[in-house]
Amino acid sequence: MTLRLGVIGTGAIGQEHIRRCSKVLQGAKVVAVSDINVDGAKAALQRLGLEAEVYADGHDVIKSSDVDAVLVTSWDPTHEEFTLAAIAAGKPVFCEKPLAMTAEGCRRVVDAEIAHGKRLVQVGFMRPFDAGYRALKKVITDGEIGDPLMLHCAHRNPTVPENYTTPMAITNTLIHELDVLRWLTEDDYKSVQVVYPRTTSKSHARLKDPQIVLFETQKGIRIDVEIFVNCTYGYDIQTEVVGELGIAKLPEPASVRLRKDAKLSDTILVDWKDRFIDAYDVELQAFINDIAAGKLTGPSAWDGYAASVAADACIKAQESGAIEPVELPPRPTFYDK
Amino acid sequence: MTLRLGVIGTGAIGQEHIRRCSKVLQGAKVVAVSDINVDGAKAALQRLGLEAEVYADGHDVIKSSDVDAVLVTSWDPTHEEFTLAAIAAGKPVFCEKPLAMTAEGCRRVVDAEIAHGKRLVQVGFMRPFDAGYRALKKVITDGEIGDPLMLHCAHRNPTVPENYTTPMAITNTLIHELDVLRWLTEDDYKSVQVVYPRTTSKSHARLKDPQIVLFETQKGIRIDVEIFVNCTYGYDIQTEVVGELGIAKLPEPASVRLRKDAKLSDTILVDWKDRFIDAYDVELQAFINDIAAGKLTGPSAWDGYAASVAADACIKAQESGAIEPVELPPRPTFYDK
Amino acid sequence: MTLRLGVIGTGAIGQEHIRRCSKVLQGAKVVAVSDINVDGAKAALQRLGLEAEVYADGHDVIKSSDVDAVLVTSWDPTHEEFTLAAIAAGKPVFCEKPLAMTAEGCRRVVDAEIAHGKRLVQVGFMRPFDAGYRALKKVITDGEIGDPLMLHCAHRNPTVPENYTTPMAITNTLIHELDVLRWLTEDDYKSVQVVYPRTTSKSHARLKDPQIVLFETQKGIRIDVEIFVNCTYGYDIQTEVVGELGIAKLPEPASVRLRKDAKLSDTILVDWKDRFIDAYDVELQAFINDIAAGKLTGPSAWDGYAASVAADACIKAQESGAIEPVELPPRPTFYDK
Amino acid sequence: MTLRLGVIGTGAIGQEHIRRCSKVLQGAKVVAVSDINVDGAKAALQRLGLEAEVYADGHDVIKSSDVDAVLVTSWDPTHEEFTLAAIAAGKPVFCEKPLAMTAEGCRRVVDAEIAHGKRLVQVGFMRPFDAGYRALKKVITDGEIGDPLMLHCAHRNPTVPENYTTPMAITNTLIHELDVLRWLTEDDYKSVQVVYPRTTSKSHARLKDPQIVLFETQKGIRIDVEIFVNCTYGYDIQTEVVGELGIAKLPEPASVRLRKDAKLSDTILVDWKDRFIDAYDVELQAFINDIAAGKLTGPSAWDGYAASVAADACIKAQESGAIEPVELPPRPTFYDK
Repeated sequence: MTLRLGVIGTGAIGQEHIRRCSKVLQGAKVVAVSDINVDGAKAALQRLGLEAEVYADGHDVIKSSDVDAVLVTSWDPTHEEFTLAAIAAGKPVFCEKPLAMTAEGCRRVVDAEIAHGKRLVQVGFMRPFDAGYRALKKVITDGEIGDPLMLHCAHRNPTVPENYTTPMAITNTLIHELDVLRWLTEDDYKSVQVVYPRTTSKSHARLKDPQIVLFETQKGIRIDVEIFVNCTYGYDIQTEVVGELGIAKLPEPASVRLRKDAKLSDTILVDWKDRFIDAYDVELQAFINDIAAGKLTGPSAWDGYAASVAADACIKAQESGAIEPVELPPRPTFYDK
Repeated sequence: MTLRLGVIGTGAIGQEHIRRCSKVLQGAKVVAVSDINVDGAKAALQRLGLEAEVYADGHDVIKSSDVDAVLVTSWDPTHEEFTLAAIAAGKPVFCEKPLAMTAEGCRRVVDAEIAHGKRLVQVGFMRPFDAGYRALKKVITDGEIGDPLMLHCAHRNPTVPENYTTPMAITNTLIHELDVLRWLTEDDYKSVQVVYPRTTSKSHARLKDPQIVLFETQKGIRIDVEIFVNCTYGYDIQTEVVGELGIAKLPEPASVRLRKDAKLSDTILVDWKDRFIDAYDVELQAFINDIAAGKLTGPSAWDGYAASVAADACIKAQESGAIEPVELPPRPTFYDK
Repeated sequence: MTLRLGVIGTGAIGQEHIRRCSKVLQGAKVVAVSDINVDGAKAALQRLGLEAEVYADGHDVIKSSDVDAVLVTSWDPTHEEFTLAAIAAGKPVFCEKPLAMTAEGCRRVVDAEIAHGKRLVQVGFMRPFDAGYRALKKVITDGEIGDPLMLHCAHRNPTVPENYTTPMAITNTLIHELDVLRWLTEDDYKSVQVVYPRTTSKSHARLKDPQIVLFETQKGIRIDVEIFVNCTYGYDIQTEVVGELGIAKLPEPASVRLRKDAKLSDTILVDWKDRFIDAYDVELQAFINDIAAGKLTGPSAWDGYAASVAADACIKAQESGAIEPVELPPRPTFYDK
Repeated sequence: MTLRLGVIGTGAIGQEHIRRCSKVLQGAKVVAVSDINVDGAKAALQRLGLEAEVYADGHDVIKSSDVDAVLVTSWDPTHEEFTLAAIAAGKPVFCEKPLAMTAEGCRRVVDAEIAHGKRLVQVGFMRPFDAGYRALKKVITDGEIGDPLMLHCAHRNPTVPENYTTPMAITNTLIHELDVLRWLTEDDYKSVQVVYPRTTSKSHARLKDPQIVLFETQKGIRIDVEIFVNCTYGYDIQTEVVGELGIAKLPEPASVRLRKDAKLSDTILVDWKDRFIDAYDVELQAFINDIAAGKLTGPSAWDGYAASVAADACIKAQESGAIEPVELPPRPTFYDK
């Protein structure tokens, strides 16, 4: 049984997902797309050599009786609306992050999904599908390093454009750690503090860069995340888990080791798109397979909401300089595994 | 257009390829299988939840008008016969190694394919599809280390059963290097010598282990390959290319780095099946895609023949202790890229 | 000219320094020692095959006309007294850390030395003499990573005895970082905060372990130091400097890399005494050479005072949970390099 | 008791050893030197701020009643003569390699020493004193990797001058491996073969570079050594020992690991003088200490002879292309440990 997908929004990431579902993954095909730029949508399909119904309005995709499930890859402010509509139509929906523009918006999706009575939403956090993070989590859950006590993390980017501002370090960059570290530790944030080192001379007027974000979790794990988006040298994601019996480190991407020019070196990636490229395939294949199996298991609307609540606390901490609580309500039993 | 595959032989590797083509890859489906054990073939399909025509005779698979292309994963001595039959039927055929039991048999396949006038055969050498080897080759062809002068290689296995004998170090183990090093260097072997270190106490009566195989290539590259199949510690494949300007090393498999018990350690795999697991997917997807594109580009019948000729020279060198020539005729222009 | 040394205190470290000055280093000999346990001192000399005058009172060592310079390796609470006496006698003195039991005590040494008019004191901080830290500092001062913005550090010990309490994480463990990071960054601490992860089950009743100490420096560098003294796995010192253009990491100790038992591993030391063993030789040779050259250049009484002031602030921060200022007065020009 | 040294030859290495014995090591002083260029010798002493008797003739150094032991650092063709003279005078002698210009010359030194009845000669092979090689040997003798079966080695140099010819790859470069690998394996060479890869374009008219030298030892260990003296990228010494239970690798020199410019890199040394710099101190301190203890234990005249015999066989193998025997007589019991 091939899953018939509708894709709302045919920008860069929408096109990538269309290509992926059509040419790489098993068990699905794209039967309908929409974009406010209908000609752009048609051109995109043509470039990919695909045929599908093209709509101007995402709601037509959701309503189409040819469509079994929906991918929301449209403009961020429309994510909540389309996801709610898909839930209303009882159709599974993969929504690119952010699930909504506010924690309240995410909460509305959560409430709608619970009211519907069955999980329909997967949020587009891909790192839990990365082979490296999965291997790291296995080491932890196998008990190889004992109970985790601390996490030392870094999220570094070579450079960002001038329109990237201080709070975007949270909403556009840290957002990935906010999700994946909850998943990795199976824990929730209790409080957060942000401290600012001296700003690099490579930064812009409206951006304090780097920043260090310090979390305490409900279980008492301490997490520090260095965010450094003008580090110049590469796109570099570091996660180290210190447990009672040892320390485990996220694998570096595989690299040809060179002896050359008086250096023994491995390559560090510079483009974020290359770092978790395989994980995008895996997350969407999981969405397709989970629908076939009748039960979604990937990042949930609740995970999207939790990341949003944490992001709000981070931004408050950026501004206050104080230790701010992360006030996430108890997880509804609906989202128990 | 979905490629309709027939699979001849439903043993372990046959079942793996059936699963792969049915559940992982794009663009193909298995419509027919055969095995001398028909009930086994049926049981295998059932376990996979698949439906396909089941034959007792591989020739029926080849002849079936439902079958567009053939996978030969049967007993080694039948490979040549089924591959020749597929060529006679004008159907593309993916043949697991060995292509034939002798160099002469490989040559018959080559001749049949040339007589047919178009490439139809891909041999199941998967290492050229491994991401690590591809990255290594890119470093070389990009000129980063200058012209290659030497290769230092190792093929190590934790242990082998008692029925593994000295020549099997060539035919079952080195055979992968015989292919991938030709591909990596775009060169052919000129001569080969085998030397025997003291045999490990972990070996068996009929096996000299380890062995070192020394090649000179047509371009004058010197290659040493350590074969050590009772090394106890892991399945470990090493390839290091020494060029005029530097040295490049095949990436180690990604691993969670641990600090534990007074060791800073990475995991070494122990099961060969895990080492190139992704490459099997890639090689078969390439076969499927190349058929759709009208031109096979993977390891050819000529490559299968060349590996077989080299293996024969290696075995002669094992026995003689002398430097033996590798007498491969010039490559027919038919096989030019 | 051989420097004639007197050593006050012949416990473990005293004996090590006597051995070092007598059998390893150039340009000095031990002519007098003292210990409240005179017989122990005599036995120690005998074991080392050395002859020297033996006193019960350290002041007799200082007063002896045979003694050109003094090593203070006695019970910590006597360090200040003997160092002040050596200054009063105008004799160079190498004082093991701590220089005094309080910041005020350290300050008294500073004031006495300034009053004397010439540097006479070297404090026994050995890490600035470690080849790894020196190489790291050279990378920074050569500008290879641009201006430092952050330091990520760890000081881990396999286990500590039950009498090791929470503040000892500062005075006995962090004290080395308090000195070496000032030296490495050529900067002073501005404030400090201590946070506590969940305590490891391997810790004792009176010890919160691990701890994370967070500094801001005068130049705005942010430093985090993980102190984890029951980490079980090894004695592990980590220092990573994040600069505007790159990141530099303290070298790991050299190790034979093993492939064995499905692990690719390097050895992590477990005994702190092995980690900086060469640095002890270098620091004392520097003391001897600097006296011959007429100018001390190693860690000064001011450095001892600065470390003590920082330690006091750390302990206050341990107790308050707040961000505490580190109130070090401006450095007297007397201590300019 | 201070050992009074006489140094014959005050060229570059002679001056280094004079400095070392005078300013770094314990237990010795240089009381006499000689050089055919007497003014040069005097100037060298002056630069070092040392006073010593200066002779034109090395025999006067040996004869001087002020001299307890001799360092021979003169022109290579004079080594044998001065070493024999020191033996005749009954004085311990440290002779820089080569011990003599021919194996026969080395044998004359061996015979003279045996006739004298007590070891007096240490040959200046420094690698057995390198901390890395010692750690590697400890791993082997501790049985961590089981019995050694193979060694994979490389000796690479960035570049050599035009007067460096093919046989110098043996006598000037491989000579260090010829000694240290005997010491590491406690084994002797049985035969040797040399093969030539395509010559690098960076080489000169009279030098085939790289070369691969293949040994079989008496115990059946197979050793391959890549010699590549125009490798351009650095001075790089590799030794990997493959045992029955695992593999141990000579440590790389400690290095600050950098993340910069899209590379994660360690530094590779380029100057051979930096690679084993500490080992020179250790070898001479051992010579001094061993004389005080009454028994030399470092590389012996027999070791010098064995290296010379092996070198002769290597050069023969370079020319013949055949497998050449290494005909070392049985070791006299005089040289048993």
